Parts: sequence; structure tokens; C-alpha cells
Amino acid sequence: MNLRLTLRIQGGLLLFLAGMLLVPLPFSFWYRDGAWLWFVLSASLSAAIGLLLLRVFPTRAELTVREGFGVVTLAWVLFAAFGALPFLFTGTIASPIQAYFESMSGFTTTGSTVITDLNVVPESVLVWRSLTQWLGGMGIIVLSLAILPILGVGGMQLFEAEVPGPTTDRLRPRIQDTAKLLWGVYFLITAAEIAALMLGGVSFYEAVCHAFTTMATGGFSTRNGSIAELGGSYVHVVVTFFMFLAGVNFSLHFQALRGRVGGYFRSEEFRFYLVVLASSVLVVFLFNFRVYEDPLTNLRDSAFQVTSLMTTTGYGTADYELWPVLAQYILVGLMFVGGCAGSTGGGMKNVRVLLLVKHSFLQLSRLIHPRRVRLLKIDQKTVSDEVIQSILGFFALYIGIFVFASLGMAALGVDQVTAGASVIACLSNIGPGLGQVGPTDNFAHLPEAGHVLLSFCMLVGRLEVFTVLVLVFPSFWRK
Amino acid sequence: MNLRLTLRIQGGLLLFLAGMLLVPLPFSFWYRDGAWLWFVLSASLSAAIGLLLLRVFPTRAELTVREGFGVVTLAWVLFAAFGALPFLFTGTIASPIQAYFESMSGFTTTGSTVITDLNVVPESVLVWRSLTQWLGGMGIIVLSLAILPILGVGGMQLFEAEVPGPTTDRLRPRIQDTAKLLWGVYFLITAAEIAALMLGGVSFYEAVCHAFTTMATGGFSTRNGSIAELGGSYVHVVVTFFMFLAGVNFSLHFQALRGRVGGYFRSEEFRFYLVVLASSVLVVFLFNFRVYEDPLTNLRDSAFQVTSLMTTTGYGTADYELWPVLAQYILVGLMFVGGCAGSTGGGMKNVRVLLLVKHSFLQLSRLIHPRRVRLLKIDQKTVSDEVIQSILGFFALYIGIFVFASLGMAALGVDQVTAGASVIACLSNIGPGLGQVGPTDNFAHLPEAGHVLLSFCMLVGRLEVFTVLVLVFPSFWRK
Repeated sequence: MNLRLTLRIQGGLLLFLAGMLLVPLPFSFWYRDGAWLWFVLSASLSAAIGLLLLRVFPTRAELTVREGFGVVTLAWVLFAAFGALPFLFTGTIASPIQAYFESMSGFTTTGSTVITDLNVVPESVLVWRSLTQWLGGMGIIVLSLAILPILGVGGMQLFEAEVPGPTTDRLRPRIQDTAKLLWGVYFLITAAEIAALMLGGVSFYEAVCHAFTTMATGGFSTRNGSIAELGGSYVHVVVTFFMFLAGVNFSLHFQALRGRVGGYFRSEEFRFYLVVLASSVLVVFLFNFRVYEDPLTNLRDSAFQVTSLMTTTGYGTADYELWPVLAQYILVGLMFVGGCAGSTGGGMKNVRVLLLVKHSFLQLSRLIHPRRVRLLKIDQKTVSDEVIQSILGFFALYIGIFVFASLGMAALGVDQVTAGASVIACLSNIGPGLGQVGPTDNFAHLPEAGHVLLSFCMLVGRLEVFTVLVLVFPSFWRK
Repeated sequence: MNLRLTLRIQGGLLLFLAGMLLVPLPFSFWYRDGAWLWFVLSASLSAAIGLLLLRVFPTRAELTVREGFGVVTLAWVLFAAFGALPFLFTGTIASPIQAYFESMSGFTTTGSTVITDLNVVPESVLVWRSLTQWLGGMGIIVLSLAILPILGVGGMQLFEAEVPGPTTDRLRPRIQDTAKLLWGVYFLITAAEIAALMLGGVSFYEAVCHAFTTMATGGFSTRNGSIAELGGSYVHVVVTFFMFLAGVNFSLHFQALRGRVGGYFRSEEFRFYLVVLASSVLVVFLFNFRVYEDPLTNLRDSAFQVTSLMTTTGYGTADYELWPVLAQYILVGLMFVGGCAGSTGGGMKNVRVLLLVKHSFLQLSRLIHPRRVRLLKIDQKTVSDEVIQSILGFFALYIGIFVFASLGMAALGVDQVTAGASVIACLSNIGPGLGQVGPTDNFAHLPEAGHVLLSFCMLVGRLEVFTVLVLVFPSFWRK
């Protein structure tokens, strides 16, 4: 791997981050929260290191596939580090490890937090916190739709044929083209949500913060009580709708904005996502009749929580730990499924689960008709054996990481439910889990070794597992 | 499928079962427990239905692969039904559904029980209960080493080339040859355990019962306190050793008895089983220093419980719910892994887990070296793509059944931990789980719909998933 080139690119990215660190300034001035100097300091530090990297590594080589893994992983690791500075400098989070956890939770669009009281945090810091998720979401869309397919990772290599672009080994031109188009879509839907929320009486500042974290399926809020405190039923419905959109493949949104709305229903993954989501809402709603007196409130809260956890956003409007056990089990199951490939949602992705289901049935049918050749198809196209094997490898690794990280949390003395729930909440980039990290709790009370482990889980989950794990192979580093 | 032939074979099997139902008679006479008449009645009923089936379906067609699935599944369903009669007739279990659950738990070598007090149960009934497991174990050995490979199901098709025999579509001759050899081994090791237990002061009756349920990795005991009540450290060590043996592929034992002891260590699956077991014992032992004062007692109990749950036996000598959370997590993880292919142990089987691990690493290495061809091997032999795909399909189905059955238990109002734990305890044919079905509890208090669902899980898990699920396909039943 060309480490010099990798570091040079990080320099450029840090300059970009420095610019982003100045975005909260107007909010700081408006609310006079006194945090502006700390943002200027964070931006300066980020810019200084960025310039230093650009100067020390003046290489001009083209980026190849192998460097792609290093660039992507290192970008998230460094962004989380420099993005943690405002939390530390303003004293919002005292421990550097916890500040890193919060920042990683932002850039991976997870939404797990160590901040116990949001009311005492300066407004500009909360804007920054939401912005980290929005930027993470931007990164993920480009990553999953433009970079990972080229690296041969992620569910989207399935649709590779559909994405136009050069088939060369060089990454830059193709990524730039795709990025511009998709970011346009991302920006547009975010703006639409800001407008919709402000129509419901939400202030500009809070509408921006929540639109940022909805579209990223991140889930950071400006309120301790999350969306329940932000507004009434109108706001709940608006947020549910936009969470749903954020969990959909952004290239479908792109098509729809160009007039081809039928693309949604031609996508098998979208139909699967819709069916799983709708049937889960229905079952949870029916079982929640034991808990809710008013059916409409029940429907609103059931739809909100199911959408929030399936899209891996992690907002809350109700304490689902008080719901029937079945509803909780469904929510945990959905945490593993997550959003669609090419969305900002985490988890294993609908397309992978759909392919696993299809693969299983195909195996059964092969036993009955051993001589009949049947191929695994999606969207009427045959899925190659390599893709199936890669997806099955992903599935095994995902479960493996879940098991071993849960063992790690258990070794740190965390209780039964919390150990597994904290890991899946971070690995699938959701935010809240169950037990001691449930919807009414936070992650502050965990041991700091746990924060390190969970930060790693967020990173691995967000970057589709393979991207990070290849770096562990010694042979990856050889020329 | 030729249903007439399938039913005719069931007739023959029921005659065999009738004979087995007479085995507890001497114990009934010796202990004068008054149950002998009920065994005669059960045997007569079983024989009558068996003869009826043989008479009504005098077909003489050869058994083919497709009928194999039906014969195997129906055999377990019917054995569980007729095997439940003594529990019902003697009043040991009042509810027919619960009696069926107990009997299915026996023949699938699971070991989950609904009997709350074993002290009031007639000795002959306890012998029968243990015998159901021993017979189930016999069935499983032949199933996994002789029948399933031909049907193309189960981890053992990997080793198919090693098993000598005709490659014809006809099942009978091959199954009979393999069965005779393996049952000899099974019988021999069982006899050795009876002798070893009696040397430790255990009565003949209890030695027989426990040897039956050890070798079947079943776990039914004659004592409410399981092995903890049966004897001291000597007995614990003996049982641990034989549980370990029962979790090993019986064709390796067969080789060893013919003098080729090195076969054990030439088997990658055996080495994997040994490493997972030993390292789990070590970690549990280390973490249990918080619980145990005496290191030797700690080692004895840690080794016993780890071996008991990994081999899916389910005996208890300590309440592991009082152990550190990490130890409990390890035990739950081992419940999914289970024994080796070709053993009486349940779970997903070591060879499948080993192949999943290898497959995952191969996928990672393919990303680094996209042009290098590397094949998945086990025991120095290349594993075909079909086998890998079948194993990955198995993995997905196993997890899928676990999730949906857990949802089912949760829907019945069972608590969080118990819902999942009861399902994995039955699906992996272990016996006890965690929560309300932990090592000090039983399954009696669950709703009866839960007993039906869990009986189905035991059956599906025991028959390697595919064997039962193909029957659900309508096309399976067409000519």
C-alpha cells in the first residue's frame, strides 16, 4: 500500500474538515454560547495538520483499489479524532476517550451518546454534533454507491452494472461524478425536512440539527427526551417519513427526482424493505394494544420506533423497554437488518438479508430437484456466485464480530442484556439499545475500555466490515 | 413421494419401538414400581399400529432419496408420539402435549424436561426416559453418517468420499452396513461408561440411565440435582470425559478402535472442537475465580459445564446463572456451535462453524489478492462450492429459525431471556437454557403452545434443518 499517498489524501480531507468546523460559528454568535473560540481553535488545528500532511507528502500518484481501503478507514479514524476537539475544548465531555466515542458515533451516524444532559451543552456544540452525522451520512452515500462497489465490498456491487462510469482502476473521476449527483439529492431532501419541521413550529436551529441527523439516520437530538420533546404528532409523522426516506437507496431517490418514480417499486430491495417495515409496524401495533389505550397514539409510536430502529436512526418517542417482549424482539431483529444498501442506514442491509432468504430457499429446492438448475436472481438479474459468497462471508463476519465484541463487553463486567445490546447498537450504527443502554439511558456509565471497543464496532459496522478488516492482514501492507 | 412405502417403513419401526418399550420391564419388577402393565400396554399399542401399517401397505418398492426425507422426519414424529405413552399412562405427566414434549426431548437427545420432581417418578419410567435418548442417539449416528450424506444434507457430505459403500440411489444396503459398525462402537462406549460409573459407587440402574443419556448427549438424569447429586468429583470427571467422547464424530472412534488412534488428530474438525472446548474451559475457569474459592472445584465445574453445554448434553453440576456474565455468554455461544458432525451432539456442528470461519477469511484475502485463486480446504481436501453454499444456507436457516421461534415464544408472553434461551436450548438439542429455563428450572411452566413450538424446534434442529423443511415445499409431494 502507498502510505504516503494515503496520508496526503487525509491532509486534503482534514482541510475540508477544518472548513466544516467553522459551520457552527454563526449559531455560536446568535446564541452567544461562548464556544466560538473553541471551534476556531479546532479548525486551526485540523487545518494545520492537514497542511502539514500535504506538505510532507507531495506525492502525485493515482489512487488504486488497494489504497482505497486505507484511505476510507483512516479518514473515519481521523475525522472522529479531530471532530472530538470541540467536545473536549468546551468541556462538554471531560474524558478524551469518551469525546472520541461521541465523535465516532457522529461520523459513523450511530447516535450513541455519553452526554448525560443536553440542556447544559452550548447550542453550537449541538450543531456540530448533528453536523458530524450529516457529514458521515454524506461520506457513507458516496462510499456505498461509488467507492465500495469498485473495491468489491458492500451490497452495492450487485448493482454495479447500473452505475455509469469508467471501469478503470483509478478511483478519482468516477467518485467525483457520482458524489456530486448524490449529494445534490441528499442536500435537497435535507432542505425539505428542515422546511417541513419549521412548518410544525420547530425553530430553525433545531430543524437544522434534526434534519441533519434524520437524513444521516444518525439520531443525535438537541433534547434529552429526543423527538418526544421536540413536537407533537405532526413532527413525529414528519420525522418518521424522512427516516423512512433516509433508509432507502439514494440512487432510487436520484431516479425519482429525474421523474422515474416507478424505480422504487422495480427495486426488489425497496419492496422487501417496505414489507418488512410495514409488517413489523403492524405486529408491534397489535401487541401494543396491551400498553396503549389510544390506538392512534399506539400507531404513531409503533411506526416511529420501528422505523427509527430499522433505519438505524435511533430517535425515541417512547420507552420500548416497557413494550411487550415480542415488540422488543422485533426491534432487536430489525437492528440486525438495518437500511437498504446505498442509504445512510446501517445494519447488514436489506439486500443482504433478502439474498440470504432467497439463497436458503434455493438450497432447499435444490434438495428436492437436484437436477434442476435454478439461479439466484435479484431485480431479474442473476447474482454471481462470487457476490453470494461475499455476502455470506459478510454475514458470518458480522455475527462473529457481534459475538466476540459482546464477549468483550461481558468481560468488562457489563450485564447480560447490555453487553449484547450495546454491541449491536454500535455495530449496526443505531444508537440506543436495550438494558443499561436503552432508549432512556446513555453510554456514559460504561467502562472506558468499552467505549474503545464500541468505537471500533461503529467503525467496522459503518465501513461494511471488510473495508476495515482487510487492514489487519499483514499481506495487505506488503508491496 | 411414495407415501405408502414411507408408512410401511414406519410400521416396521413401530414394531422395533414396541420391543424397546419392554426394556424397562425388568427394572419395574426389580423396584416394584407398579408401572409394568403400562409398558406392556404401550408396547401393545405400538405393535398393533405397526402391524396395521405393514398390513395395509404391503408395497415392496425400493426406498429412494426423496422418500428418505419423509421416512426420517415421520419416524421421529411417531416415535415421540408412542414414546410419550408411558409418561401419560403412569400419570407422570398429565398433559398429552407435555408428554409429547418430554418424549420428543428424549428422542431428539435434547434433555429439556417438564417433570418437576423426579423423586416421585417410577424407576422404570426413568429408565424409559433415558432409553428414548439412547435410541435417539443411535438414530442420529446412523442418520448423520449414513443417511444424510446420501440425501445431500448435513455436514458429513464433506466426508462422503471416505465412507465406503455403493453409490446407488438405493438406501437400504448401505445404511445397514454402516449402522452395524457404528452401533457396535456406540454400544461399547456406553458399556465402558456404565462400568466406570459403577466403579464410582453408582448403582447399576443409575449407571445405565446416565450412560444412556451421556452417550446420546441427551442430559436426562434420575436426580433433580442432575450429576451434582449423583456422585463426587470422580463421577464428575468420568461424565465429563464421556460427554467429550459423545461429541466426537463416531467414525473417528470406529477408526480408533481399529487401532488408528491418529485419526483423531488428522481430523481438522476434531482439532477445532478440542481448541474451542479447551480455550472456553480456560476462560470460564479464569473468570470463575471471582465465584469459587477452591481452584480445583472451579476447574471441575467449569470443565463440566462447558463440556456439557458445548456437546449439547445439558447435565448440570453448578448453577451457571450465578457465574460472571462473560462465562454465560461463552456458554450461550457454545450452544450454537454444538458437537462434531457424526456425533450425537446437536447445534450447528463444529465443521460448519470451522468452514464459516475459513470462508470468511478467504473472502477477506480475496479482496487483498483479487487475482490469486485460493480454495477452501478441510483435511487437505478442497470443499466444493455446492457444499459451501449448502452450509451457508444451513447457517442462515438456523439463525432464521432461531429468530422466528424466539419471536413466537415472546408472542406467548415469555420473558426476554427465556424466549431466546428456550429456543436455542431446544433447537440445538441441549436441554436447559437461561432465565426461566435455566439449569435449576424446567420447562413445565411454559404455555402449551410453547411446548408445541419447542418440540418442532427440537425436531428441526436434530434432523439438520433441511430434512424437515423440504417437506414444507408443495413440489416435494408431487410425483
